[in-house]
Amino acid sequence: MATSDRIERDRLAKRKRILEAARELFVARGVEAVTLREIAQRIEYSTTAIYVQFKDKQDLLDHMVREDFAAFTAALAAVTSVVDPLERLTRLGDAYVEFAMTMPRHYQLLFMTPHAAPAPEDVVHDVAGVDGYHLLLRTVTECVTTGRFRPELRDPDGLAQAIWATVHGVVSLLVIMGPEAVFRWRSPATLAELALGSMLRGMLADPTELDPRPRRKPRKR
Amino acid sequence: MATSDRIERDRLAKRKRILEAARELFVARGVEAVTLREIAQRIEYSTTAIYVQFKDKQDLLDHMVREDFAAFTAALAAVTSVVDPLERLTRLGDAYVEFAMTMPRHYQLLFMTPHAAPAPEDVVHDVAGVDGYHLLLRTVTECVTTGRFRPELRDPDGLAQAIWATVHGVVSLLVIMGPEAVFRWRSPATLAELALGSMLRGMLADPTELDPRPRRKPRKR
Repeated sequence: MATSDRIERDRLAKRKRILEAARELFVARGVEAVTLREIAQRIEYSTTAIYVQFKDKQDLLDHMVREDFAAFTAALAAVTSVVDPLERLTRLGDAYVEFAMTMPRHYQLLFMTPHAAPAPEDVVHDVAGVDGYHLLLRTVTECVTTGRFRPELRDPDGLAQAIWATVHGVVSLLVIMGPEAVFRWRSPATLAELALGSMLRGMLADPTELDPRPRRKPRKR
Repeated sequence: MATSDRIERDRLAKRKRILEAARELFVARGVEAVTLREIAQRIEYSTTAIYVQFKDKQDLLDHMVREDFAAFTAALAAVTSVVDPLERLTRLGDAYVEFAMTMPRHYQLLFMTPHAAPAPEDVVHDVAGVDGYHLLLRTVTECVTTGRFRPELRDPDGLAQAIWATVHGVVSLLVIMGPEAVFRWRSPATLAELALGSMLRGMLADPTELDPRPRRKPRKR
């Protein structure tokens, strides 16, 4: 029993190293350019050691996308308990940017790498129903139906997509263009606050809701 | 003379076809995965026909990036004549999104494809000084110094980057995730209006400046 435990632990540790090496190579050079052999060489494994765990490159990629989506959704799910929808919306934005900046390779694989099949429907929906977009959409819908947004803003999908685009824009622009020092880049948190903070203020029926306060008074629940 | 004209015209036509085929392949599969041979095959040329025009793949890529940046900058430069900085800002955003949606492959190559060297300094600055970021930065700076933005927003670079991130986010999210029908995507123009329009409203000292009006009164110049 102890032995089979150790074997399984070793297998999982190897699996993790393989996925990390593969992710690094996929996002740096494109999925298509990378071979299983190169992945193996990078971590000094034999190619066979990869085939023990994955059928082929596509199988490895599928597992990676599924697991990275699970990590992404888990990072967002932490905010579901926030009662006030506007506060939940800003916390969602923060969690999104934080996930992308602490796990940039995961983020690049999921949302910036062509051919990585970011979202076949079964992948988007298989994570206990807590997929990121629907969490965002529900939150936006609550803001709309409770009159937090200006009355002419009535399309939760459009609003959710505009908000998603903005946080994605901050993250992906920094990932691709960040190394170019000619742009004196501000930090991800600063840009997210400027971009998403200003956008939400522009969407609100009462923009002063986002003014800094000692403690926001609790809303009706 | 007529003959050498024709030879030169043929050469340029070939060059254009080569660049178009290469751009298509680069953004679809990653720069590294693509060989000159595949580019040649795609347009039924010999590989030699490419070597007549370009030294190697890097040389071809360098020319492409330079020319695509020139097209991008030209698309934005059309708005420089708009006097009012806030109007210029919204027109810049529209021009940006329009460029990206009408020339998505150019956009992907410049701002979304790793290893495509989007902005070595000499490329950014070689287009008659009208590079996109500085155009944006100048416009934002005008808005700041003329008191159009809320007084706490004093960092033109941060504001310019937040605005850039937002339009980039709309475009790049649609390029990568657009094919996923599970998200009921709104049009690029709708999302840009929701995202950038709301953000600018949130940045303005007087948010009603962006309310629809029969004709905005001319500003002091």
